[in-house]
Amino acid sequence: MEIKNIAEVLNYALEYGRKHINKGNVATYIPELAKVDKNLLGVSIVTIDGRRYHAGDWQQEFSIQSISKTISLIFALEHFGSEYVFSKVGMESSGDPFNSLDKLETKNKYPSNPFINAGAIAVAGLIADKYEFEDYLALVRSLCGRDSIEIDENIYMSENETGMLNRSMAYLMKNSGVLDTDVEETLKFYFRMCSVKINTNDLANYASILANDGVEVKSGIRLIDKYTIKIVKSLMVTCGMYDGSGEFAIRAGMPAKSGVGGGIVASAENKMGIGIFGPAIDAQGNSIGGYHILEYLSNELGLHCFSRELSNVVY
Amino acid sequence: MEIKNIAEVLNYALEYGRKHINKGNVATYIPELAKVDKNLLGVSIVTIDGRRYHAGDWQQEFSIQSISKTISLIFALEHFGSEYVFSKVGMESSGDPFNSLDKLETKNKYPSNPFINAGAIAVAGLIADKYEFEDYLALVRSLCGRDSIEIDENIYMSENETGMLNRSMAYLMKNSGVLDTDVEETLKFYFRMCSVKINTNDLANYASILANDGVEVKSGIRLIDKYTIKIVKSLMVTCGMYDGSGEFAIRAGMPAKSGVGGGIVASAENKMGIGIFGPAIDAQGNSIGGYHILEYLSNELGLHCFSRELSNVVY
Amino acid sequence: MEIKNIAEVLNYALEYGRKHINKGNVATYIPELAKVDKNLLGVSIVTIDGRRYHAGDWQQEFSIQSISKTISLIFALEHFGSEYVFSKVGMESSGDPFNSLDKLETKNKYPSNPFINAGAIAVAGLIADKYEFEDYLALVRSLCGRDSIEIDENIYMSENETGMLNRSMAYLMKNSGVLDTDVEETLKFYFRMCSVKINTNDLANYASILANDGVEVKSGIRLIDKYTIKIVKSLMVTCGMYDGSGEFAIRAGMPAKSGVGGGIVASAENKMGIGIFGPAIDAQGNSIGGYHILEYLSNELGLHCFSRELSNVVY
Amino acid sequence: MEIKNIAEVLNYALEYGRKHINKGNVATYIPELAKVDKNLLGVSIVTIDGRRYHAGDWQQEFSIQSISKTISLIFALEHFGSEYVFSKVGMESSGDPFNSLDKLETKNKYPSNPFINAGAIAVAGLIADKYEFEDYLALVRSLCGRDSIEIDENIYMSENETGMLNRSMAYLMKNSGVLDTDVEETLKFYFRMCSVKINTNDLANYASILANDGVEVKSGIRLIDKYTIKIVKSLMVTCGMYDGSGEFAIRAGMPAKSGVGGGIVASAENKMGIGIFGPAIDAQGNSIGGYHILEYLSNELGLHCFSRELSNVVY
Repeated sequence: MEIKNIAEVLNYALEYGRKHINKGNVATYIPELAKVDKNLLGVSIVTIDGRRYHAGDWQQEFSIQSISKTISLIFALEHFGSEYVFSKVGMESSGDPFNSLDKLETKNKYPSNPFINAGAIAVAGLIADKYEFEDYLALVRSLCGRDSIEIDENIYMSENETGMLNRSMAYLMKNSGVLDTDVEETLKFYFRMCSVKINTNDLANYASILANDGVEVKSGIRLIDKYTIKIVKSLMVTCGMYDGSGEFAIRAGMPAKSGVGGGIVASAENKMGIGIFGPAIDAQGNSIGGYHILEYLSNELGLHCFSRELSNVVY
Repeated sequence: MEIKNIAEVLNYALEYGRKHINKGNVATYIPELAKVDKNLLGVSIVTIDGRRYHAGDWQQEFSIQSISKTISLIFALEHFGSEYVFSKVGMESSGDPFNSLDKLETKNKYPSNPFINAGAIAVAGLIADKYEFEDYLALVRSLCGRDSIEIDENIYMSENETGMLNRSMAYLMKNSGVLDTDVEETLKFYFRMCSVKINTNDLANYASILANDGVEVKSGIRLIDKYTIKIVKSLMVTCGMYDGSGEFAIRAGMPAKSGVGGGIVASAENKMGIGIFGPAIDAQGNSIGGYHILEYLSNELGLHCFSRELSNVVY
Repeated sequence: MEIKNIAEVLNYALEYGRKHINKGNVATYIPELAKVDKNLLGVSIVTIDGRRYHAGDWQQEFSIQSISKTISLIFALEHFGSEYVFSKVGMESSGDPFNSLDKLETKNKYPSNPFINAGAIAVAGLIADKYEFEDYLALVRSLCGRDSIEIDENIYMSENETGMLNRSMAYLMKNSGVLDTDVEETLKFYFRMCSVKINTNDLANYASILANDGVEVKSGIRLIDKYTIKIVKSLMVTCGMYDGSGEFAIRAGMPAKSGVGGGIVASAENKMGIGIFGPAIDAQGNSIGGYHILEYLSNELGLHCFSRELSNVVY
Repeated sequence: MEIKNIAEVLNYALEYGRKHINKGNVATYIPELAKVDKNLLGVSIVTIDGRRYHAGDWQQEFSIQSISKTISLIFALEHFGSEYVFSKVGMESSGDPFNSLDKLETKNKYPSNPFINAGAIAVAGLIADKYEFEDYLALVRSLCGRDSIEIDENIYMSENETGMLNRSMAYLMKNSGVLDTDVEETLKFYFRMCSVKINTNDLANYASILANDGVEVKSGIRLIDKYTIKIVKSLMVTCGMYDGSGEFAIRAGMPAKSGVGGGIVASAENKMGIGIFGPAIDAQGNSIGGYHILEYLSNELGLHCFSRELSNVVY
């Protein structure tokens, strides 16, 4: 059985990812995001036996954006139960871009899933109605293992000023009764969620908990319920990479969630958590460097959940 | 570590599945399917160490329907390569019913994926252009481990006579150039694919090969290429259960593909293959008894790919 | 040549209209509208030689709702010119309900026409950006020939509180840049436009100006430009009765515009203006009693623009 | 009152139309149509007092294409009655291109109107089920006043071979039960209808009957029922120029119907019939030269049905 040097593989993966950066671009619909250097690329790994690896711009902070949708889903599932949450949002791929109106006018009563914008706004509405933003932020800090995590106020204000498409879908859900709460309050909560500043080490910590069945690696403390984690990781496989989720499941084969800020959180079951930052994104909204890093790591470290190739590797 | 008696669990699973039959109905859009007794329910298991279990109406033959889409995809991938196949069909959930026109008119140049009707017709066109139906049938027989597998001519004629929606989408793809081949020849090939008669034992054999990384359990012979199997199982997770794939991934957590004839093939990675027959189907087109059997088996035997619960069970 | 007694025909028309009231219902999406008595029905006629006829509940005041869209279009055309106005809104039927998002997300950059909600909001944005509401109200008063016309504040507040679907489409247009102005300011202007209280005599006055090529009947003063009137009446034929415009053109054959408050303004070219009030509306949002009154009058008085039947009647 | 010299106005109109040809192109989806010289442009007028004017390439024959949809509607209305016909097809603008699937899958049970392809195929199915093509052709000959009118066999074969989109929509209607008849038989009838060869004089004859309330100008014989003509002309106004009908109603203000072969038939109520040929078509499928000729004639001869400008002209 082969012994892999993860640190070395990680450096190659970074180089491989870098080659694809020029095919992507930073998100421009939020002015603050457009200011980021598109050539940044960083990655962190935390294995479920507690080792930690970094490469590239892993210390760079960036806004969590849609990766927050997995944490708000965890929050909502654990505070309201799955039955109530899934009475407000579906469990299926939408087949449409993440920022689409999701056929809410013509076909769907509820948003397709909690990972497209409309669905995440619906979940944010549930939380905002009963909890303070600080309660949610406490969960982010706990899962990322860093108490100093805060909002980037510039990002927040930029999102709030320019988020007209999100307002449109929120009012559409208000109209149909999916959203019970005040639209502007809900959107403020949602934009705050998206504006949380993290780095790849934070994401890798969170990812290692996902990979370790909800249990924090270093402490052995369960932070996410077993039933919750099954739901969240399954949805990450089917809907986590926007309308590129199907191809990513083929290429990398692990639950992952991306954000338009360039972050990706990915969980290799029973093996490791991976955090990525690469602000050049592809047409679907996924970090293009990060996507290729994950494909590379999946192949080299045997992380694909439906391939036996290398899956007995010791590293 | 717990020792499970699979035979006993299987009987309980069957009973659990039966309770849900009354919420479904046999497919009626093909007259021949409407004649089937909706109360039938059967299941077979083949473990990757070669044990075999059956319960209920496992000897009953039925038409394979959309489960054939996984085998035609395997055929196409192995004969034409993934690059060519995926130049004709996508890898993403459509977010629409299996028999929809899949936004082929308004949005998509190519069908969303090979498991909705439009995509499977596109793949059938590729095969029909270069191979005989007997070539395809040989692969079905090989994967199911039974040389006597044949078409049900009544089903075939019934599909061919009534398949107007499939004709509509085939002509739409002919119009846009996705389909190069003769529409009626392609449809005949497709309807024949759907009309193959199998039983749950056949499906469990096929499923055990999927669970065993493409290698036939009893012979140790590789029947499906490693790269092909990764693609097919990943797509089964994201798109295999029609527009109910997301919820099934949460509830059962294994690659599966259903057919409106009531069959389901499901692969529990490294553990077992499962074949189901239950012609009462739900609104998404999935066997309602079979769906619940799989959820039950997943929970009791620890088959969910993203849950550590019971995953170290010995059975 | 036949001599018709208009007063008598009008009474028969009212009776005919009344028979259809039970097939409609008052609009319920604005709470204030839901309080109106659905059995009310009134009609006024002003001929272009200045005669005036009334029947039924013609003195009853009601909110003008979408009929205002014709007056705001006149205002915009005369203040900004047709080129600028039609750079922000189209001239075609949408094929969708009046309160649809009008494919603004998926297909159209601009709203299909100025008579569906999205289009009227876009036009309201143009006006609100440069003029006071009083300027617009002055035109309403002038065209209806009554200086005491005011807003119904309860209707306005009800619309403003509940108009979430209109908000959704306004933010969608804000997002795409169709709407340059502040969304809430624009919506306030739009809801005020819809909340103007009028009666059928007011509408008949306005309609008589439309029928008289833009010239006020009693004074001989031109109130609407020749080019403007051609545009507005043509659009009333193709889009004035929501997604029932095609059938209405067949049945009644005259430019008309309805509102969900139950009003209809209709112009029989060179003959007469007709104002209707009947709050029971059909599935398309048109006064069901009013629709039948207009069909009856068209047949009896020879008002259909593409039928020579009775068109030489003297009345 | 002004006296106009129609012959002179017609020549200016032709020159005006010619200037716009370069902005259009011949239809290319039917190979035979792509062979036509795009610079051809001709026009004929027949007044309701029997005068006849021509300009340009008026003797050139071309395929009638969608103009046939008005004649098949007349045929169907007179043989089956409006109630039956409109139980199979709607009366509203679709808001979509003429060759769209017209939301038949997702929204509409029946095609929106008889002038988009789907609707015309539905009407052709009604006729093909009970009558021979010769019966229909006899009506074309009668309305155009020329017994030698025939099909262009090359056009017919070209349409039949390449009409995959029409096949797609026909099978969609077969699937939903809108079409009762054999799809291929119906399409043959429809393609034959489209392939009839005419010139602008033929169209002007037909148009003069429309303008004259259904009565042939020279003989005084009624060829179209009064009720039928009201329906057909009203639909021509709301849906006759495809998804450019609204703008055309504003600019030219008369019932008209175009075909992708470059023909337009237009009826100026009580005044004249106009036939056009100009194979360069715009994005909506309307002859671009013809469109401008009609706008010019409408302005110069006072033909707009909602403008009093020049409407008392003597010519």
